[in-house]
Amino acid sequence: MEKERIVSMIGKVRKEVPLVHNITNYVTVNDCANAVLAIGASPIMADDMKETTDITSISKALVVNIGTLNERTISSMIASGKKANELNIPVIFDPVGAGASAFRNQTTKKILENVKVNIIRANLSEMSFIAGLNVSTKGVDVSKEDERNDVVSVAKNVAKMYNCVAAVTGKTDIVSDGEHIAKLSNGTELLSKVTGTGCMTSALTGSFAGVVSKYGEYDYFDAACAGISAMSIAGELAYKKTIESGTGSFHVSIIDFLSKMDEEMMSENINIEII
Amino acid sequence: MEKERIVSMIGKVRKEVPLVHNITNYVTVNDCANAVLAIGASPIMADDMKETTDITSISKALVVNIGTLNERTISSMIASGKKANELNIPVIFDPVGAGASAFRNQTTKKILENVKVNIIRANLSEMSFIAGLNVSTKGVDVSKEDERNDVVSVAKNVAKMYNCVAAVTGKTDIVSDGEHIAKLSNGTELLSKVTGTGCMTSALTGSFAGVVSKYGEYDYFDAACAGISAMSIAGELAYKKTIESGTGSFHVSIIDFLSKMDEEMMSENINIEII
Amino acid sequence: MEKERIVSMIGKVRKEVPLVHNITNYVTVNDCANAVLAIGASPIMADDMKETTDITSISKALVVNIGTLNERTISSMIASGKKANELNIPVIFDPVGAGASAFRNQTTKKILENVKVNIIRANLSEMSFIAGLNVSTKGVDVSKEDERNDVVSVAKNVAKMYNCVAAVTGKTDIVSDGEHIAKLSNGTELLSKVTGTGCMTSALTGSFAGVVSKYGEYDYFDAACAGISAMSIAGELAYKKTIESGTGSFHVSIIDFLSKMDEEMMSENINIEII
Repeated sequence: MEKERIVSMIGKVRKEVPLVHNITNYVTVNDCANAVLAIGASPIMADDMKETTDITSISKALVVNIGTLNERTISSMIASGKKANELNIPVIFDPVGAGASAFRNQTTKKILENVKVNIIRANLSEMSFIAGLNVSTKGVDVSKEDERNDVVSVAKNVAKMYNCVAAVTGKTDIVSDGEHIAKLSNGTELLSKVTGTGCMTSALTGSFAGVVSKYGEYDYFDAACAGISAMSIAGELAYKKTIESGTGSFHVSIIDFLSKMDEEMMSENINIEII
Repeated sequence: MEKERIVSMIGKVRKEVPLVHNITNYVTVNDCANAVLAIGASPIMADDMKETTDITSISKALVVNIGTLNERTISSMIASGKKANELNIPVIFDPVGAGASAFRNQTTKKILENVKVNIIRANLSEMSFIAGLNVSTKGVDVSKEDERNDVVSVAKNVAKMYNCVAAVTGKTDIVSDGEHIAKLSNGTELLSKVTGTGCMTSALTGSFAGVVSKYGEYDYFDAACAGISAMSIAGELAYKKTIESGTGSFHVSIIDFLSKMDEEMMSENINIEII
Repeated sequence: MEKERIVSMIGKVRKEVPLVHNITNYVTVNDCANAVLAIGASPIMADDMKETTDITSISKALVVNIGTLNERTISSMIASGKKANELNIPVIFDPVGAGASAFRNQTTKKILENVKVNIIRANLSEMSFIAGLNVSTKGVDVSKEDERNDVVSVAKNVAKMYNCVAAVTGKTDIVSDGEHIAKLSNGTELLSKVTGTGCMTSALTGSFAGVVSKYGEYDYFDAACAGISAMSIAGELAYKKTIESGTGSFHVSIIDFLSKMDEEMMSENINIEII
């Protein structure tokens, strides 16, 4: 039931082609744009204060990613976030590396204080930081499963704290709106060997969130599940296809499968349990 | 006749290896550099005021692209543009997203007021904005064919207004120097599903423009036709090769075919009509 | 003997997964991150003054690359370099385009004056500039073998001047610690047709340097030889595999082979002579 609803979102994205405004990092920005295009949405990257709210205003979703944080763009992130809130445009937040430096911690807090975010997509270290737990982060791309912190309770707590959907990606991905829990079990460990797979997941989630308001039947919980599933399924299929080649080919193949993704491919492969 | 002249430029680029200075966006910059290398030229990316005119001075062409516009680089764009004018180095302008925000509109105007550009390469929305028509742009990567604006007259008008070559890429690409019109009918719609194919077209056009001054037989009209044709033909061939795979492989294959492009490949595939 | 020691480093990198802090350019940053991941290390890109020393502090190596130099990041490069010196974290310096503009020349000098670098990885033009010789650089990606400057003596001189390891990459790569000389003869000319292969070599060298302090048996000379060999061997194997396709596939295949690289692959292919 929920599975069918989530899977059906991809048809809506391909039909509506929502414009997705990304304020993101310079490491993975090209992959994010190509992932958004591959899934059927339309990306726009703009981060200067002189235009960022104008761009947000014409978009269907805003994705804020702090991967290569710098002072110039923080004010853009907040201004665009506020504009999105004002216009009921969904805001997806990817707190890359939260826990790794005081600057990222402060910025993460500042964004959450000033902007009502609808979906937070993070690894366990980053989400644990937001939940107020002690964390040690080893780089922005590495999410060490931390046995001390129970993933489900971290996601649920953050969802309640910020009245949002919290999506923790890892070996098993956990999505919570504070009440419901989705456990998503697609993916491959190889996804951690290509930079930007987390950022792409957030950008894809933004693409799905871009059709939420138009179709009353969906909510942000669905969008997060769809974004994560699209990435994880593409990763699984790419892994099978390129296992002999290596991570360069795997990287390319992820985009290939995202561009071929349809309701049938998602439906056949999705491994989701909703509690 | 013109076809042979245009096609022959690629041999000159591979022989001369012109240095092409790009002041461009951080989304597609890697692809632009690799496209320039693939076609046989040499890319240099530099945008800081402290060196931008030095870099322009040693280059054979300057490509200015406002894809991820920010205040820091606008002054570099103008300073390098003026330096290029002073030294008779061709200037190619890609007004990415003109029409999408007041900031992009103002910057586009500012560049055109301060720099004599030799070639403008844009989609129809962007070129219509420059022509002074009303436009609604939906993102920087999406060029919606606008039935209201006749492409040929837009290109011709802009060419006359700015005494330059105006190249409007779309389903059919139109190049005009204000007098002549080239209609180029290569390409595939899939090119719009990879970010940066427009930016790469501008960077390739810069590569061809880099041999214009050396070989008196060519002009900017030829360079624009050659740049667009190289990209469109590579796109067509890549499309045929990767149709089963997806847009990740398509993206890679575009660079592959650019790197294999020679007079024979261009001559066999080019679909150009000059009026 | 030395060959076995150098080759064995890759096992250590894959075991230790050193965190490698890169302050680098926006052209090739994605490739650098993916190369570091492919070889088994963990990349982190951060360049804002508000966090750069925090990130350096948790890293095992710092790679400073001036590819798209701008005023904002120079102070970060120096602050992180000083922090790395303080904490005995190895510093790898890639003076991209030194010799091409006064700004790059001044910055190169400023970094070398303020930071004790352990490895300089450069092409011959750039290293000749550091050696105080007259150079003319044609772009940042092009290393013209300059017959006037003897590569070995340039490397040796720079190594002595800065009490560091100097690695000059070109047709034959030369590494010197001021006393010993390694001549590395892997690679393919096609590596110069993909942007960022030099930057990736520096990032890989950083990955190997990240295990030097832990394993007393290695030094920076070994790390530079291992970084260069990994890249050159991946390039050779990728060239053989993709010769029919073009530089897009070659680019992808380089990452593929880096991700498959192990002691056996290195040992079978490495072509090194130490004098």
